[in-house]
Amino acid sequence: MLIYLAMETEMNQLKLDLRKFTKDRNWEGFHSPKNLAMALSVEVAELVEIFQWMTEEQSKDFDCLNDLKDEIGDVMIYLTMIADQFNLDPIEMAKIKFKKNEKKHPKYI
Amino acid sequence: MLIYLAMETEMNQLKLDLRKFTKDRNWEGFHSPKNLAMALSVEVAELVEIFQWMTEEQSKDFDCLNDLKDEIGDVMIYLTMIADQFNLDPIEMAKIKFKKNEKKHPKYI
Amino acid sequence: MLIYLAMETEMNQLKLDLRKFTKDRNWEGFHSPKNLAMALSVEVAELVEIFQWMTEEQSKDFDCLNDLKDEIGDVMIYLTMIADQFNLDPIEMAKIKFKKNEKKHPKYI
Amino acid sequence: MLIYLAMETEMNQLKLDLRKFTKDRNWEGFHSPKNLAMALSVEVAELVEIFQWMTEEQSKDFDCLNDLKDEIGDVMIYLTMIADQFNLDPIEMAKIKFKKNEKKHPKYI
Repeated sequence: MLIYLAMETEMNQLKLDLRKFTKDRNWEGFHSPKNLAMALSVEVAELVEIFQWMTEEQSKDFDCLNDLKDEIGDVMIYLTMIADQFNLDPIEMAKIKFKKNEKKHPKYI
Repeated sequence: MLIYLAMETEMNQLKLDLRKFTKDRNWEGFHSPKNLAMALSVEVAELVEIFQWMTEEQSKDFDCLNDLKDEIGDVMIYLTMIADQFNLDPIEMAKIKFKKNEKKHPKYI
Repeated sequence: MLIYLAMETEMNQLKLDLRKFTKDRNWEGFHSPKNLAMALSVEVAELVEIFQWMTEEQSKDFDCLNDLKDEIGDVMIYLTMIADQFNLDPIEMAKIKFKKNEKKHPKYI
Repeated sequence: MLIYLAMETEMNQLKLDLRKFTKDRNWEGFHSPKNLAMALSVEVAELVEIFQWMTEEQSKDFDCLNDLKDEIGDVMIYLTMIADQFNLDPIEMAKIKFKKNEKKHPKYI
């Protein structure tokens, strides 16, 4: 019971912070799911840009983490905002999709 | 104290599940940060595809949630896997970036 | 003179074909620049998908060209349609941008 | 005959310019199809960014064309470079794909 409440608190806090941030700036009119999907794709491209000219090996050894942290943060923010438009939780959706992936790709025996 | 442990459990469980899933299928060699960034961008495009021909109003009223749930789940899965390559937590990164955004965009008074 | 006319014909034919195709299907209402930009990004992701799990070497040796041809065609189609909304020509824009790139990145001597 | 030669000249000139530009800067090692596909997706995202917070109507009336021209140019440049890795011509691919689209989506009668 305590554990369930705690998880709720963690996820909900980010959602509530983002709702308040948007409302305080009168940006709600801009945040249609369509626009948020576009913004999400732009943030992901900024993450892709970090790695575009690296070899795979170089990408594994990448250690200028400040830029990467910002981009991961931005992608998570926009994903949370899109999901929140439909009262969905990204982590819960990942868990459900993960179960499907396990069935779709059975492990080698 | 209990709350902190509970949050750890929640986030870590998804990470650990994804690590095990990857290892069980011998896919670790494919999962360089470079490749995962490409895969993330492909999953985001599948989310964008849902809304591309809708008006903003139609995107707000969208109610065929099953496809959307899958795509949000896929984006969250790949974002978690990239972050995990660098021992980063997407929700923590979102919170840190959120603090920066608050300073960058002060609210109207 | 003959050369100029010929180039016009080549580029204009694709534009005119795409305009007629759109009009014949009553899709003009869907083809706002915003929507076409989304569609372009979706088509590019399908091209990215082809290479996402390959090494760079494998991507150089890739020889299942039918899928790639389709995706290059789709990207060119949407790029032409966006450009045409503003009476712009993609090849002309490439030439102008190329001149800028030459100045921005002088060659090693 | 003259027309065919003229079209060749037009398309080939851009390809040849891009090949020389890449060679003069010793960038050939970076330009695997995999990397060029990533770079193409990043450039398309910069085009998407222009329109992300606009309504569809605003995107139709957009008249700050300088940024848009640069982005269309960049997308065309990277598309040409990917296609050239496989000796393909983007406009020719668009025409072939267009024929397929006509069959796939017959017009209303």
